[in-house]
Amino acid sequence: MNAAPASKSYALPAPLPLDSGQALEGARIAYETYGELAEDRSNAVLICHALTGDQYVASNHPITGKPGWWERMVGPGKPIDTDRFHVICANVIGSCMGSSGPASEASDGAPYAMRFPVITIRDMVRGLVALLDGLGIEQLHTVVGGSMGGMQALSLAANWPSRAARVLVIASTARHSAQNIAFHEVGRQAIMADPAWADGDYYASGSSPDNGLAVARMAAHITYLSEEGLTAKFGRRLQDRDAKSFGFDADFQVESYLRYQGSGFTQRFDANSYLYITRAMDYFDIAEEHGGKLADAFAGTSARFCIVSFDTDWLYPTSESRHVVHALNAAGAKVSFVELSAPNGHDSFLLPHEELDRVVKAFVE
Amino acid sequence: MNAAPASKSYALPAPLPLDSGQALEGARIAYETYGELAEDRSNAVLICHALTGDQYVASNHPITGKPGWWERMVGPGKPIDTDRFHVICANVIGSCMGSSGPASEASDGAPYAMRFPVITIRDMVRGLVALLDGLGIEQLHTVVGGSMGGMQALSLAANWPSRAARVLVIASTARHSAQNIAFHEVGRQAIMADPAWADGDYYASGSSPDNGLAVARMAAHITYLSEEGLTAKFGRRLQDRDAKSFGFDADFQVESYLRYQGSGFTQRFDANSYLYITRAMDYFDIAEEHGGKLADAFAGTSARFCIVSFDTDWLYPTSESRHVVHALNAAGAKVSFVELSAPNGHDSFLLPHEELDRVVKAFVE
Repeated sequence: MNAAPASKSYALPAPLPLDSGQALEGARIAYETYGELAEDRSNAVLICHALTGDQYVASNHPITGKPGWWERMVGPGKPIDTDRFHVICANVIGSCMGSSGPASEASDGAPYAMRFPVITIRDMVRGLVALLDGLGIEQLHTVVGGSMGGMQALSLAANWPSRAARVLVIASTARHSAQNIAFHEVGRQAIMADPAWADGDYYASGSSPDNGLAVARMAAHITYLSEEGLTAKFGRRLQDRDAKSFGFDADFQVESYLRYQGSGFTQRFDANSYLYITRAMDYFDIAEEHGGKLADAFAGTSARFCIVSFDTDWLYPTSESRHVVHALNAAGAKVSFVELSAPNGHDSFLLPHEELDRVVKAFVE
Repeated sequence: MNAAPASKSYALPAPLPLDSGQALEGARIAYETYGELAEDRSNAVLICHALTGDQYVASNHPITGKPGWWERMVGPGKPIDTDRFHVICANVIGSCMGSSGPASEASDGAPYAMRFPVITIRDMVRGLVALLDGLGIEQLHTVVGGSMGGMQALSLAANWPSRAARVLVIASTARHSAQNIAFHEVGRQAIMADPAWADGDYYASGSSPDNGLAVARMAAHITYLSEEGLTAKFGRRLQDRDAKSFGFDADFQVESYLRYQGSGFTQRFDANSYLYITRAMDYFDIAEEHGGKLADAFAGTSARFCIVSFDTDWLYPTSESRHVVHALNAAGAKVSFVELSAPNGHDSFLLPHEELDRVVKAFVE
């Protein structure tokens, strides 16, 4: 991974308190904005990114050069219309695109590495709220996120209920299941099994645990796609050959695809960040934070909620979204829910989907 | 992994031809038997083992000391009754419990390692048929297997239709799907990313790619259990602690379980065998071997078939079993099919299940 280039960067004026009881000193949050902030500051939309996402929601990624990860959703005339809205997207703390994370310098001038405190989704949101404070934004028009971004949106709604008038949660969950944790644990063990990980102190070594990180990414990628989607996309088709090689090269297209996903990822992501962010997701359980009852997390909220799931998402299946909807109903919140049909599983929220566009556009109006 | 102790061992009298076009010289097959063979040799039941299984179906494993992997099913008075049947269970070629595999000596006296030829499920069965020839068993009373064992049972029925009167296939499939291949590819990449793998030449080094193999096993283990089963078994419960540690130890029971499964596995299994056997499974597609139509694979069979699936098995879901049943019906075969309800996903075929016992007992009568 190369050093992340400069984005807009906000230096938190005070130490960031963390759920662990520690505090993060000198934290910075890197962010991008799109569209003008209205004079009354009423048109701010905060977009929260997923595990391996970043602030480049609608602008080219500085390392890969690829278009923003939600360009189809965010821009002039798009469902989240930057002609009308001031869109903010910030890199979460713990990540590696300019916000404070394990690759950042600690007070002794060396990278934190595994000295970085373990953070939670609520800690990430605490950082985002500090950024909103810094930007003078009292209440968001909308907070929106898919996957881990949806966890942040729910956490904001639960813990800072006055800060968002609308909460849009896509392909997400209010808690990580045993299976979710299991997949992340495999990824972490793959990274930590790589000798180049060196207990996290690899930044000065000139090498990094790319092999382990690639395996982690490959395992995760399986969960992002549906079985049906994989079958439709790859089936048992061979890659650039007419017959099986009777060897261990990538004979099948699906093998080639996974290897490509794994190796491409290591160019843009820090392995220690992967450890910290997956840990934060595994710790995520909003009900647990609020006495064990999810409805209590949203008691008295005046925000409007929209919960969206995809029928082929087996990472955060529709049942998890329904669980959130039931809790919001029990809390007396205004909530709409839609399960969209899509062949591509969890990844569907990042892919072209006209009905999703319509749902987002209608809710953000 | 320690060297496998001696089992009964059969030295194939001729080179074993392989689907790759190569032949395996001097192959040996290690096997166990239980119960007496009838004088007319009509009571032989061949049990085919799964990916990481072995010949110790109903006797203690010589390395781990644990009971046989299907003790509850095989023995005096058990559903596969060794008072009546002569049960044969052989280690597949490619494995590491005494049958020829990558850890075996090649003709130059050094381990094959990655010089071992890539094999297929049909090659494994070719080895089993050679063993039956050696034992003088013309026709099996029943061939039975779960998971990869079921693949072998189907392959025997398709390619040597006269060799088994009854074919019992549990929690299996006639082809590996893109998702199945994807999980195996993650495991293989984890092994091959481990520097101790050393391109497979680790046998003389005193070390072995245990870290990579453990990660492979962990990833596979997720597929053996259902989401519901994982939730029931572990949920988000913490392991031996009252609160999250805000660290990277195994806070959750499911993490602890996976780590245990991963590290325990490396004591009894060879990493190269894991590569070869997963490859064989990924190559498995009976229809492809028979001109693209699964029914053609079973044309003219006179065997009776019983196909069993579990409703929570997402590795080889019921739809795959139905696919086999439809093909058998189209081929005019005698086939019964049952989907059993069980909470534990794919692993259910190894766990206590009274209805499975009854189905097996009734079919083998």
